Amino acid sequence: MEMKPVGWVESPLGERSQAPKQGNEGSPEAWIVFEAELAEALHGIEAGDEVLVFTWLDRADRSVLQTHPRDDPANPLQGIFNTRSPDRPNPIGLHPVTVLAIEGLRMKVRDLEALDGTPVVDVKPVI
Amino acid sequence: MEMKPVGWVESPLGERSQAPKQGNEGSPEAWIVFEAELAEALHGIEAGDEVLVFTWLDRADRSVLQTHPRDDPANPLQGIFNTRSPDRPNPIGLHPVTVLAIEGLRMKVRDLEALDGTPVVDVKPVI
Repeated sequence: MEMKPVGWVESPLGERSQAPKQGNEGSPEAWIVFEAELAEALHGIEAGDEVLVFTWLDRADRSVLQTHPRDDPANPLQGIFNTRSPDRPNPIGLHPVTVLAIEGLRMKVRDLEALDGTPVVDVKPVI
Repeated sequence: MEMKPVGWVESPLGERSQAPKQGNEGSPEAWIVFEAELAEALHGIEAGDEVLVFTWLDRADRSVLQTHPRDDPANPLQGIFNTRSPDRPNPIGLHPVTVLAIEGLRMKVRDLEALDGTPVVDVKPVI
């Protein structure tokens, strides 16, 4: 099961310590830059749309099975599948964002907490 | 970016023609069977929880870039990122389901339209 990047995140967020825990907790505006051969796959997406962006959280620790949610020791230890921690066996990030603009292969979005350079692996409409 | 299965779907659905277009459009009850070494990662998930199941839709056509939503030619052609079609560059399935029971490494769920034998790659709580 091998994934290929369909695009990349361009964001002012450079490290995990700068990123909010959830996208709507203070993320800066960011861009997704898609691979040129996938231009057709964007057809129909417009400014104002709510979409789900899927990323590959390439700086995650894939060996973690339990964690304290939100990195707060006061929260009881939970199985990683009961948390949104980026550290998990397959570090897929799920980001509900609002599309602010589409310019060719570039999509500007609000509420994306992924770090600069993170690979994007899928985009789906919110249903 | 290589994913490993964290579990597998057990479902009466054997082929795409039997599966509803969305999970809540008539899916039978199904089980997810997790890999034994990931038992700890399930800690805290309980019957009644709403979770997001991520699958790898291994019978998808990864070359498709545009489609008529819901396979209905009356719907105008859309970029694949503006649809929920399983045929897409990285065929990640996203399934909001309700947990009906947990029995060790087995999780019984409602509203899962994935086919029998589909690899599961992640589970996250609904926020």
